[in-house]
Formats: sequence, C-alpha cells, structure tokens
Amino acid sequence: MFESAEVGHKLSKEEYNKREPLLRQQLLKAQYDLLEKKSFPVIVLVSGVDGAGKGETVNLLNEWMDPRHIQTHAFGVMAEEEHDRPPMWRFWQALPPKGKIGILFGSWYTDPIITRVLRHTKMAEFEKHLDEIRHFERMLTAEGALVIKLWFHLSKKVQKKRLKKLEADPVTRWRVTPEDWRRFKHYDEFAEVSEHALRETSTGEAPWHLIEGADPQYRYIAAGEVLLDAMKKRLEGKAPVLAPSAPPPHIAIDGRDILNTLDYSQKLTPRVYDKKIDRLQGDLNLLTRDRRFRNRSLVIVFEGMDAAGKGSTIRRVTRALDARYYHVIPVAAPTEEERAQPYLWRFWRHVPRRDNAVIFDRSWYGRVLVERVEGFCSESDWMRAYHEINDFEEQLTLGGAIVIKFWLAVTLDEQLRRFREREKIAHKKFKITEEDWRNRKKWPKYEQAICDMIERTSTEIAPWNVIAGNDKPFARVEVLKTLVKRIEERL
Amino acid sequence: MFESAEVGHKLSKEEYNKREPLLRQQLLKAQYDLLEKKSFPVIVLVSGVDGAGKGETVNLLNEWMDPRHIQTHAFGVMAEEEHDRPPMWRFWQALPPKGKIGILFGSWYTDPIITRVLRHTKMAEFEKHLDEIRHFERMLTAEGALVIKLWFHLSKKVQKKRLKKLEADPVTRWRVTPEDWRRFKHYDEFAEVSEHALRETSTGEAPWHLIEGADPQYRYIAAGEVLLDAMKKRLEGKAPVLAPSAPPPHIAIDGRDILNTLDYSQKLTPRVYDKKIDRLQGDLNLLTRDRRFRNRSLVIVFEGMDAAGKGSTIRRVTRALDARYYHVIPVAAPTEEERAQPYLWRFWRHVPRRDNAVIFDRSWYGRVLVERVEGFCSESDWMRAYHEINDFEEQLTLGGAIVIKFWLAVTLDEQLRRFREREKIAHKKFKITEEDWRNRKKWPKYEQAICDMIERTSTEIAPWNVIAGNDKPFARVEVLKTLVKRIEERL
Repeated sequence: MFESAEVGHKLSKEEYNKREPLLRQQLLKAQYDLLEKKSFPVIVLVSGVDGAGKGETVNLLNEWMDPRHIQTHAFGVMAEEEHDRPPMWRFWQALPPKGKIGILFGSWYTDPIITRVLRHTKMAEFEKHLDEIRHFERMLTAEGALVIKLWFHLSKKVQKKRLKKLEADPVTRWRVTPEDWRRFKHYDEFAEVSEHALRETSTGEAPWHLIEGADPQYRYIAAGEVLLDAMKKRLEGKAPVLAPSAPPPHIAIDGRDILNTLDYSQKLTPRVYDKKIDRLQGDLNLLTRDRRFRNRSLVIVFEGMDAAGKGSTIRRVTRALDARYYHVIPVAAPTEEERAQPYLWRFWRHVPRRDNAVIFDRSWYGRVLVERVEGFCSESDWMRAYHEINDFEEQLTLGGAIVIKFWLAVTLDEQLRRFREREKIAHKKFKITEEDWRNRKKWPKYEQAICDMIERTSTEIAPWNVIAGNDKPFARVEVLKTLVKRIEERL
Repeated sequence: MFESAEVGHKLSKEEYNKREPLLRQQLLKAQYDLLEKKSFPVIVLVSGVDGAGKGETVNLLNEWMDPRHIQTHAFGVMAEEEHDRPPMWRFWQALPPKGKIGILFGSWYTDPIITRVLRHTKMAEFEKHLDEIRHFERMLTAEGALVIKLWFHLSKKVQKKRLKKLEADPVTRWRVTPEDWRRFKHYDEFAEVSEHALRETSTGEAPWHLIEGADPQYRYIAAGEVLLDAMKKRLEGKAPVLAPSAPPPHIAIDGRDILNTLDYSQKLTPRVYDKKIDRLQGDLNLLTRDRRFRNRSLVIVFEGMDAAGKGSTIRRVTRALDARYYHVIPVAAPTEEERAQPYLWRFWRHVPRRDNAVIFDRSWYGRVLVERVEGFCSESDWMRAYHEINDFEEQLTLGGAIVIKFWLAVTLDEQLRRFREREKIAHKKFKITEEDWRNRKKWPKYEQAICDMIERTSTEIAPWNVIAGNDKPFARVEVLKTLVKRIEERL
C-alpha cells in the first residue's frame, strides 16, 4: 500500500508556482461557501510518519485559507493520568461545528497504532480499535460531516535522511526529539501496523489519502487538492451513499411485549417504603464513597413517558449523593451550538470525570423515541442510532463509568390519572402542557419505539432496567435497589 | 462580626418540622418561577468554617428544590500546577445560565483567605484580592445575576467539638481529614482574616449572610430562608440599585483626537515590505518557540472599522505561528448559550492555556463600540464595561498572558475605496453587506466611541496600539513589529 507513496513524487518550483495561486483561491472560495451554507463540518485528520511535513502542511493550509474559520487541534498519545474521561472525549470536544474546518493533528488513530507498535495491545484488541474507529467515522459521515484523512508517508531511507537534515539545521533542530529517533527504530513495525490500520479503515465514506512527504512542493499541492476536491464535491451535494442500516425492527406477532407483560400491580405500603428507602439511600451513599469508586464514575439514565415519575425518582437518588460530585442533566431541545454538532455531542460534553456521577433526565435515547415517533429525524438516522448508542455506552464503560439505565413504565390509565391530578394542583400545572395530551395519542407508536429500543440497546454492559412505575414508592425502591446492586457488582 | 453567629442559635425539632414543608414548597415554586422567566441566574456562594455543615446544607438545598436545575460545583484551593489559565477561569466556567441556580461550594474567596491565613500573601495583596472580588461581584450583579453569599460559622470551641464528634462516628469519620485539623490550629488567624474579608466584601448588592452552623435545624432553615427571600425579592423585580458609573467621556474641544491626528500617509514599497515582513515573521516564530514562552500565553486583539484589514493582517500573524498552538476567534453575534451569561463569559471560554495563543478578530470591545453606538446595551452597561474590561485584561496578564491590542485605523475615504473594490471583485462580494454601508453613516459616533475606548482602556499592562492602516503593507509591518517588541519585553 505504501509503495505508491515511495515512488519519489516531485513537483518542480515552477509547477508549484503555477498551481499554487489557483488552488489557494479555490480553497478559500470553498471555505467561504462552506461557512455560508453551514450545512456540514469538515474534519481533516492529519497523520503519518514523523518528519513527513505534517506540521508544515497544516500551517500552510491555515495560511491558504482563512484561519479564522479553521480550528487546529494537536493530540499526542494520551498519558495514563489523562484518562479521567473515556479516550474519545477529547476528540468530541474538538469537533468543528457545521460551517467550519477542524484539523486534527494526531487523532483517534495515534493511540491504537502506537500502542500496537509497542506491543502494548494484542492483535485482537487492535482490530477492535479499528472496528470502533470505522463505526465512529461512519457515524460522523452519517451525521453529515465530511471526513478527510491524510496520511503523510516517507520511506525508511528518506525518513532517516529527513530527520538528520532537520537536526543539522539550527532553525529546525528543536523539532527532532529523542522520541522521534526512538520511534524511527520501530519504523518497520510502525509501517506494518499503520498499513494494516489504513487498509482496515479506508472506507467508502472516509478513505485515506496517501501523500508522499519527501518533496514539500508535491505534498503541499497534493494535500490541498485532496481537500479542495472533497469539499467541492460535497458542496455540490455529492454526499457518500452509506449502506442502509438493518431493516426496521419487527412487531411481536402475539401482541405481547416487555411493557404490557409487566406487573403493574406491585405496591409498597408507606411503612415498608420508608424503611427500605432509608436503608437503600444509606447503602448507595456508602458505595459512592467507597475507595474503589474513586476510579469509577456513574452515568444514570432515566427515560419514561410523561408523568412516569422521573423527576421525583431522581430526587430520591440524589438525596443519597453528595451534591459536590453529581450533576443532573435535564435534556430538553438542543441549543444552537448543540445543533451544529453530531447528536451525541451534547451528551459527550456532560460525560463525568472519575469519582463523579451524572444523572440524565431523558437522554440520547430521544433519537429512537421522540425523534423517531415525531419524525424529527429520518428513518435511517434512528435506525443507525441503536448501534451508535451501544458504541457510546461501551466507550463510557471502558472509560470506567458504570452505566445504569431505567425505563419507568406507567400504564396509559395511570398516566391519565396523573395528568388530571397535575392539572388540579396549582404548583404542578406548569408540568402539564398541550403537548403532553398530544403525545398520549401516539401511545402505540411510542410503545413500539420503546420495545425496539429495549431490544436493541439492552446490552450486557448496560442493560435496561424496566421498572413498573404505577406505584411510585415501589418504583423508587426498585430503582435504588437496582443502583446499589449494579454498583456493587461493578466495583 | 462573628459574635452574632456565636450566640447559640437553635431551632427545636418541632419548630423545624413546622417550618420545613412551607419553606420547601416556596423554594421549589421560586425555583420554577426562575426557570420559567429565565431572566437571571442565581449564584449561591457557600463558605465558612470546616465542620459547620456546609456540605449537608448544600445537599439539603438540592433535596428541597429540583436538583435538575441546580448546578453544584466544588472548588478547593488551587494547586500550583492547575495554574494553566488565570485563577478566575474555573469560576467563569461554572457560572449558571439565566434561569438556573449555581451553588459554588468554596469559591473565589477560598484562595485569597487561605493564602492570607498561611501568610503566603501580604496584606496589600490580600486587600487587592478583595477589591477584585468586589468588582467581579458588582459586574455579576450589573449583568443581572442574583449573588447570594452564605457564610457558615462555628466558634472555636464548637468547631473542635464538632470535628471530634464527626471523627468518633464511623459513618462520618471520612469527612475529617488531617487537613481539617491543621486548619483548626489556625482557627484564630482564619477567623480574623475571614472577618476582614467578609466586612470588605459585604456590599449592598451582594451582602454576606452569616449563619451559625452548630445546630442543624437552625442552619438549614436559616440558609433556606435567606435563599428564598433573595429569590422572591428579585422575582418581584426588586433589583439592587447600583451606584452609577462615571459620567460619559468628554469630547475633545479642539476636535483633535488620536484618530484624526494619525499620519495616514505612511507607506512601504513592496520590496521593503517583503524583506521586513519575512524577518519579522521569523522573529515572532522564534519568540513563540522560546523556552520562556512555555509559561506564558498570548492574547492578541484586533479591532477596527469594517474593511480596516483585520483579516488579512491576522493571516500575516498566524503565518508566523504553529497552527497547533493558536486559535483565531472571529467574534460575531453571541450564541444562545452565550446570551444566557455575563457578556465577558464568551471570551473567558476562549482564554488560552499556557504556551498557546488566541487571536481575537473583534473582541470584548464590542460592548463599548458597536453595542454602545447601536444602543444594543444601556448607557450604564457600556459605561461600566471599561472598568470590567480593564479587570479582565489584568487577570489575563496576572495569569501569564501577554495581552496585545491593535486598533487598525483607516480613513473614511480609504474605507469607501475598499468597499467599492470589494463590490467589484467576485470572491470578495460576500464581505460587503448593506449593514456595512449603514455603519459608515455613523462614523462620527464610532469615532467618539473609539477615542473613549482608547482613553479608558489603554493601560500600562495592555496598551492600545493604534496603527495607521490606509497602506496595508505598512500596517502589517507595524503590527508584527509591535508584537515582536511587546513579547520580547514581557518574556
């Protein structure tokens, strides 16, 4: 694969001077078109061999275009102590919004490749990383992002020459670190591992572009042309065609499902409730103060139809926690800044640090519930969301989080009773709106969406806990019991 | 001052049980009113003596109200290595948006008080900190925030008893750290220093509320009532009356000002320009790679009328920098999330880390320029902004930043020439809008605003550099020359 970037590509000074002004002008125009339309973000990944001119090329791209609308971020290999949140968190924070160009210097490829070169990871783990990357980039593309991946290559001989040359010049000497030489010793492993990575992740929607880095003129024009070509095509409306997601979930033919077979009659007397809830809150409190929790975090998701009792249940949970270490995130309509990003972005920004808890009152599941039912997104959008959500929760878990999800189920009758009750109580009136009544009419559609969601996203690492919620005391105790049990298991 | 919180305030269990339900209900109602109106944020500072029940009170407030709309943040004394950005940065990040309640556990008071207790700071420095805090809180209030400051106090005797009691109980033992006992040894100094701090910062707009912490019932109800009372008053529209800012700046009676006395005829030939710009870019590049720069950061501000050449000048600057270490922030209309915060918030979020540079294309000066001239804010808003801006830049500077500000000045004639030129060139057309033509008519008003701005915000730590911009090559060289000179001086 790398052979094509070892042929000694060259561009003469004259040729460069002829091409550069036009390329530059066109890039600038494409950038302004992008900025005006604000319809998609451009994500440029810059990776490759040390000394192949990555930095200079990125600087030149910033020079050719308007640097006010380019965000360049540099990422190195993550230090062990940086692992305070899942590894992908820092990349999510750096994603450019629609209309902007984000250049990611070193990216989600660096860590998997380097750890594999140094044999810190096994082949199977490496393959898994590549698989995750494919999913991630596919999601970015499906969310509308234009992902351009540039790999700057040098043959072993040329790299050695180049490092020596940089070292010889007092102006560039600082750029060659002992680390670079250490890495050079691993050139062959590095080439082998990265070739493998490139092959496995060169997808139709986000292919790698190999650029030979030896000749500056060649590499600048090549990188610029790749970028221009990709931007122009997308601006003209040519989006990659993604393979469709799996077919829509089926409907249970016997009409039985996880919601309508739930036993809603379970109840607790106030006496039993008081005793149980106190004990459970105490247990939960102790668990979150356990020494072993310092390296973990807690992500709790509450979903449920309107008036299912999410808010009051959350209060029973937070009562057991120290306010300094948790945040409750009520999920409403996305803000302007959030709308300019992939839909999971607004949840990534709230991912807790270690030793902290975040409770989501509604969550990323909105995509496969309300957005699906109300048609706020296309079928293919919510269809692919199941997989993306499972990915997301897996990353949280691998990052040390304990993910616990609750579906608070109430029957249609019980919901009606609660709506009527809310209308009567002055200070609860704000809680009931026209929309709530409208949503009731779509109950069967919601029921289908809920069942599909539970079927497709109840994983061994983050299973759904479906709680019969007609009796609030019963539901609260069940929730706390589940929390205590799950955390105990995971610590 | 603390005597009033050492009288042994107590509330019986019965009295507590009588008051609690109503207080709770009213707090919840006030919280929802706040949430609905979204007209101001509530910032609750919680400070005081160790063991006075701060944590429990904060937890209870979260329990009484809806924790989904409260954001609690805990801050300790800042570790030396955390000083990657100015000390206030972390507090700005934690400010609640309009409609929400933010509880700041440990706050901008902790560091000044503790460092003074330990005698790491001199009295004069401590006084300066308090002065900065007064300004900061005054700004928050002027921006509409309701600032409620709770100080939980315990007498020395009671504190000792309390720490011992906490230690004796296996359930609460973890809460007493050796640090607490170390601090207890400094009780008298701590009391003296904090009494001083409280007195100096108990302003009309943000007074301290002293709460005796010995009796839980008393302290819970007292804290709740303070919060409720303050929220209710503000919700009824009773905002604190702030003393008016200084009178509007005067107009120079002889008609001469810093803009119209500038020599706009200065020019550079292309030959001289090419030579100078190359050398200056090289110098700037070396300076930002200097070892001494690792502990510094760079904040560059570009302001100027439309078509003054800000964008193209910025490109001449970024060309000298490594794209991995700078960001250019084009300042346009604030986003929804930004509008829910004090106006400086959207600039604080871009404050660079050490070793990094941020270039603002338009900046916080919008408040005293376009917002003043167009009437987007009240006179008192822009009048107080001068001081707030000077404060902000001082904090940046103390935090290690080198702040360099440019006003690119062009004459009315030159602007017209450039507008016409832009209209002719296809790919520059997007740069000229109806609004640009409208703004031209307000030139005299802008000129006044610019002169006032320069007069009031050209400080010794961050002076304005007014650059004659009619000749672009001349202006660019001047800008780079100034940058190199300023950075050299400050390293």
